[in-house]
Amino acid sequence: MLRIAVLGCGRIGAMHAANIASHRRTQLAAVQDINIAAAEAVAAATGARIMHSAADIFSSADVDAVLIATATDTHADLLEQAVAAGKPVLCEKPIDLSLARVNRCAEVIRGTSIPIQIGFVRRFDPGHKAVYDAVRAGEIGELHQVIITSRDPGLAPQAYLKVSGGILRDMTIHDFDMARFILGEEPTSVLAVGSRLVAPMLMESLGDHDTITVVMTTASGKQAIITNSREAAYGYDQRVEAFGSKGMAISKNRRPNHMSLSGKGFSDRAAPLLHFFIERYQEAFSAEIDAFVEAVEANRPAVVGFEDGRQALVLAEAAIRSMSEGRAIKVSEIS
Amino acid sequence: MLRIAVLGCGRIGAMHAANIASHRRTQLAAVQDINIAAAEAVAAATGARIMHSAADIFSSADVDAVLIATATDTHADLLEQAVAAGKPVLCEKPIDLSLARVNRCAEVIRGTSIPIQIGFVRRFDPGHKAVYDAVRAGEIGELHQVIITSRDPGLAPQAYLKVSGGILRDMTIHDFDMARFILGEEPTSVLAVGSRLVAPMLMESLGDHDTITVVMTTASGKQAIITNSREAAYGYDQRVEAFGSKGMAISKNRRPNHMSLSGKGFSDRAAPLLHFFIERYQEAFSAEIDAFVEAVEANRPAVVGFEDGRQALVLAEAAIRSMSEGRAIKVSEIS
Amino acid sequence: MLRIAVLGCGRIGAMHAANIASHRRTQLAAVQDINIAAAEAVAAATGARIMHSAADIFSSADVDAVLIATATDTHADLLEQAVAAGKPVLCEKPIDLSLARVNRCAEVIRGTSIPIQIGFVRRFDPGHKAVYDAVRAGEIGELHQVIITSRDPGLAPQAYLKVSGGILRDMTIHDFDMARFILGEEPTSVLAVGSRLVAPMLMESLGDHDTITVVMTTASGKQAIITNSREAAYGYDQRVEAFGSKGMAISKNRRPNHMSLSGKGFSDRAAPLLHFFIERYQEAFSAEIDAFVEAVEANRPAVVGFEDGRQALVLAEAAIRSMSEGRAIKVSEIS
Amino acid sequence: MLRIAVLGCGRIGAMHAANIASHRRTQLAAVQDINIAAAEAVAAATGARIMHSAADIFSSADVDAVLIATATDTHADLLEQAVAAGKPVLCEKPIDLSLARVNRCAEVIRGTSIPIQIGFVRRFDPGHKAVYDAVRAGEIGELHQVIITSRDPGLAPQAYLKVSGGILRDMTIHDFDMARFILGEEPTSVLAVGSRLVAPMLMESLGDHDTITVVMTTASGKQAIITNSREAAYGYDQRVEAFGSKGMAISKNRRPNHMSLSGKGFSDRAAPLLHFFIERYQEAFSAEIDAFVEAVEANRPAVVGFEDGRQALVLAEAAIRSMSEGRAIKVSEIS
Repeated sequence: MLRIAVLGCGRIGAMHAANIASHRRTQLAAVQDINIAAAEAVAAATGARIMHSAADIFSSADVDAVLIATATDTHADLLEQAVAAGKPVLCEKPIDLSLARVNRCAEVIRGTSIPIQIGFVRRFDPGHKAVYDAVRAGEIGELHQVIITSRDPGLAPQAYLKVSGGILRDMTIHDFDMARFILGEEPTSVLAVGSRLVAPMLMESLGDHDTITVVMTTASGKQAIITNSREAAYGYDQRVEAFGSKGMAISKNRRPNHMSLSGKGFSDRAAPLLHFFIERYQEAFSAEIDAFVEAVEANRPAVVGFEDGRQALVLAEAAIRSMSEGRAIKVSEIS
Repeated sequence: MLRIAVLGCGRIGAMHAANIASHRRTQLAAVQDINIAAAEAVAAATGARIMHSAADIFSSADVDAVLIATATDTHADLLEQAVAAGKPVLCEKPIDLSLARVNRCAEVIRGTSIPIQIGFVRRFDPGHKAVYDAVRAGEIGELHQVIITSRDPGLAPQAYLKVSGGILRDMTIHDFDMARFILGEEPTSVLAVGSRLVAPMLMESLGDHDTITVVMTTASGKQAIITNSREAAYGYDQRVEAFGSKGMAISKNRRPNHMSLSGKGFSDRAAPLLHFFIERYQEAFSAEIDAFVEAVEANRPAVVGFEDGRQALVLAEAAIRSMSEGRAIKVSEIS
Repeated sequence: MLRIAVLGCGRIGAMHAANIASHRRTQLAAVQDINIAAAEAVAAATGARIMHSAADIFSSADVDAVLIATATDTHADLLEQAVAAGKPVLCEKPIDLSLARVNRCAEVIRGTSIPIQIGFVRRFDPGHKAVYDAVRAGEIGELHQVIITSRDPGLAPQAYLKVSGGILRDMTIHDFDMARFILGEEPTSVLAVGSRLVAPMLMESLGDHDTITVVMTTASGKQAIITNSREAAYGYDQRVEAFGSKGMAISKNRRPNHMSLSGKGFSDRAAPLLHFFIERYQEAFSAEIDAFVEAVEANRPAVVGFEDGRQALVLAEAAIRSMSEGRAIKVSEIS
Repeated sequence: MLRIAVLGCGRIGAMHAANIASHRRTQLAAVQDINIAAAEAVAAATGARIMHSAADIFSSADVDAVLIATATDTHADLLEQAVAAGKPVLCEKPIDLSLARVNRCAEVIRGTSIPIQIGFVRRFDPGHKAVYDAVRAGEIGELHQVIITSRDPGLAPQAYLKVSGGILRDMTIHDFDMARFILGEEPTSVLAVGSRLVAPMLMESLGDHDTITVVMTTASGKQAIITNSREAAYGYDQRVEAFGSKGMAISKNRRPNHMSLSGKGFSDRAAPLLHFFIERYQEAFSAEIDAFVEAVEANRPAVVGFEDGRQALVLAEAAIRSMSEGRAIKVSEIS
């Protein structure tokens, strides 16, 4: 049993703590949060002990590995400390909102053999993974286009949006990673357009957008298209389509049940989509832990590591520049 | 071009007339109805000439074949006259409501080589036909169960119901034929239950039922299950499922368009099913004409002939007796 | 936390034990099996202690409730002992293969207020439950027909089949309960037909059938149709359809992922259905525990209790008699 | 009955001629082609008379209107002649491959009240039209994104590709019109990327692309995304999705039948998509004729007119320039 401590007991930290506590291959070694009440709530729910600082956790002999689910601006520091302490680390995305900071972090940890996994949980979704597997197995032939739809069920709170780093770094970051995952090649050129349609005035005040499209191409001409919206009335819209010379694979949306209703004036009406990431990616969050355990136990690199986190941010930066300059940005322009 | 005359210009006759008029392999030679206004309306819409009696049609050198779409109680007489006149005939179902009359008709036409086709149009539906083809091609292995759902969008007018012969002879007759078509074997035993749920008082007064289930078995143990209702709020529910040792084939419902809508509280809502048989079986009605033309031109038996019409009625009689006696009826008990 | 002991550590007992161990409202108090190795395997996987007899469990102050997952022929005895010991009990279906034994058990426990829940887990499936909810909420109007498809992915081992009590008591028993659940009325008449198509010689030797259809009607004329097969090449086929005056609700099949593939000659091909009950009814097994905990904590009758278990067996007996006599059996004939 | 003459008896002209001949509101007045054999084949199939020149047709008192289905480079000339002759005209897309020529044509016909309809047939597809209707009826609230997928089943012959004007003018032209149709606003900015993945060497030699993505935005920020491929192994992939503040509407793909097959290792496999435009847009081609008849009979502008044809070409030109310059092109830059 891998003894994992969770740093950060907000919504996603609490979920990870519960998953680790009930996972057959892990123990929840400890939880920690600067908000003591949050840590206590998670401790009460899971029976885990509370440790009062990250430093205590990193120095504890009873902690085999750590999961970082704190505020984004602490990720890089904690990740560096974890590596220094020799603790394998599963770090929530993004590593940092600043590419410069991520690059410095890369310098600090350069050469480490400590497993570092970044929380791109969607790679572990059974449907998205099945698209990946179909592509890799050649079931659609040569890959031509990847089309990713990702729409949140509702606008995040304004307080969160202010510190989110903007839709491209915060939300699209998952889709940049998904595109790289399915493409199996690095995008070399990025185009993006952004609109303010969900909450125009708020977005204007934040200098942010709520509706975006990104088009990326690789050196061989493969295309990846991402569409995002901050609000979808019918639930959390999460689809991945891969199109190739021999066919198409699509990972479809999921619902809380498989009941459909037909009545006067309509047929086959289904429940709205699973509301949000904790429900939608439930199996994926568990499989993400599995993958981390396997990397740690085998002492080998995580299947989705630090450089994946960095590359997704590079693509976000390219998209941000494209949106502002109205032109295709070469990824090599970003550093 | 096969010159076909249509006898009977009610709803289904008018449809057949229009189909024959626009069909690339047929001409509408004439139309006839004892209701002159009905004949005139069809003549006006199609440009066909009116003939004033069935006898005129049967004796006309300009008529190659006839389609009988008159009232059910005239089918057998007209069919006999058509055969006597040497005119190939496509006769709407049922041949007659009385098995005795059908049996006498069988005697009268015994030995004829004139092509006679019975209007079991559903055999020509692309989806149902694809199930048949999959079964015959062995795609589901050995056939075990056939499950047929057939629900009308709404109750027929009382005047029609009174002369319909009851749900089993009028509506289920199509499903008896579909079961035989898919099974590829004759049912030997029939069980049926009937309920009065759509219009209890009316059904009571008619001695009829509006909701029925029939279960048939063949000598080898294959099962066919039919469920019928006289009213389905969401449209004309028409499904055929075949289950076998290697898989399952299902012919699904059809809608007027393929648009689906998702919104607050629901997802993937589709249009109601195509309303009724003229819309739902549009391609089938055209393919039925094709099959008739082919049989006539090749002077060979129709793919769905007189004996098919008779056997469906035998099954209806067995079901009626089962419903009344509460026991499995052997088909050999019916004659 | 409700402390539940599990009696019986076979496949289903092991699954229940794991569920109880990881359930947020329960503790796995102990496990027991006459096969010590089985008990030890479950104890090792869950960390639970082993108790060496049912008697020890019933007398233990550290056990709040018991789950009976032993061989069917021990269910009734253990259930009686649990009630005598004042331990709430969740008992796997069927209570016994003999209606006489079940009736004696009913006498023994008559008047008890100890919560007794029978393991008709499918009532807790999100999809089937959503059909139930739609019916109860009037979304399909007055209920007319319930159509249940239940096909196992593959034939059970011959050793199991020999002691299973036959397909109607062993497999259809779930569907009898589902029919009663959705109908909301007791069936009064039962018709059944059985065939030997999956494994004809084996079924002949066992005096059993592998392919069955059951049709039941209630006093008000509602109909329930069940089709079963012991083998479905494409996975565990589990569907429930309810049809009424205002519409239709259907609980569709489930797959391990939502990916579909299109290629040369086909489109939209999905994964096979979830293989078997442990995967297919995963959420339901967890929700079943929830319901049991709620009944015990509130000290009120379970939502699916002893009499539900008995009535399902009564319907099985009626179906067995119908199959043998080829006639509709009134449920009142069975006792 | 509107008497329509068809100019051009290639594949699409032959189809139009057959549709007009069997349409209940039209007569096929004449057919014409410089390839006499082609005209004769269509005449034989439809019974129409052949006229030997466009001039004969334009001057004939027996011709009420004309349908232009000749080679693209003759469209504009014939359209001008038709208008000069006072004949309403339904002209296949594109009006011309040269925007300059289209602009000159616009000058020539300026001020005419003769109905001119451009053959953007997809507007009349029941599914795409249902998306349009849902958007206009406010069923998805404020429109945010339109996502159009259009993939041909297979690469057109090289001879055709050489004179096609390139994928954006030839194939995407339909999608530019669909985007304008659903958006209800003019795009003001266009981004495009193109790849050579289906037939890299051929495309290189033609200076063309086979895989493209176009992103357009309107002044209010609405986005339209088009993805195209010249080859899809599973058939003619035609989808339109509209996403808005209250929901999403999607027009799904169509198949020749609604049968699905489940077997060992898979479930719910459907037939490949309808192969190509004549089959896929069969109802739409008929509804297109309806709309033309209505415009002519009411002597009012066609629902999809000359300016729609011109605007689609403007967007194609903008996309071509964007692809070459790697930047967003303002539509106002094109003239």
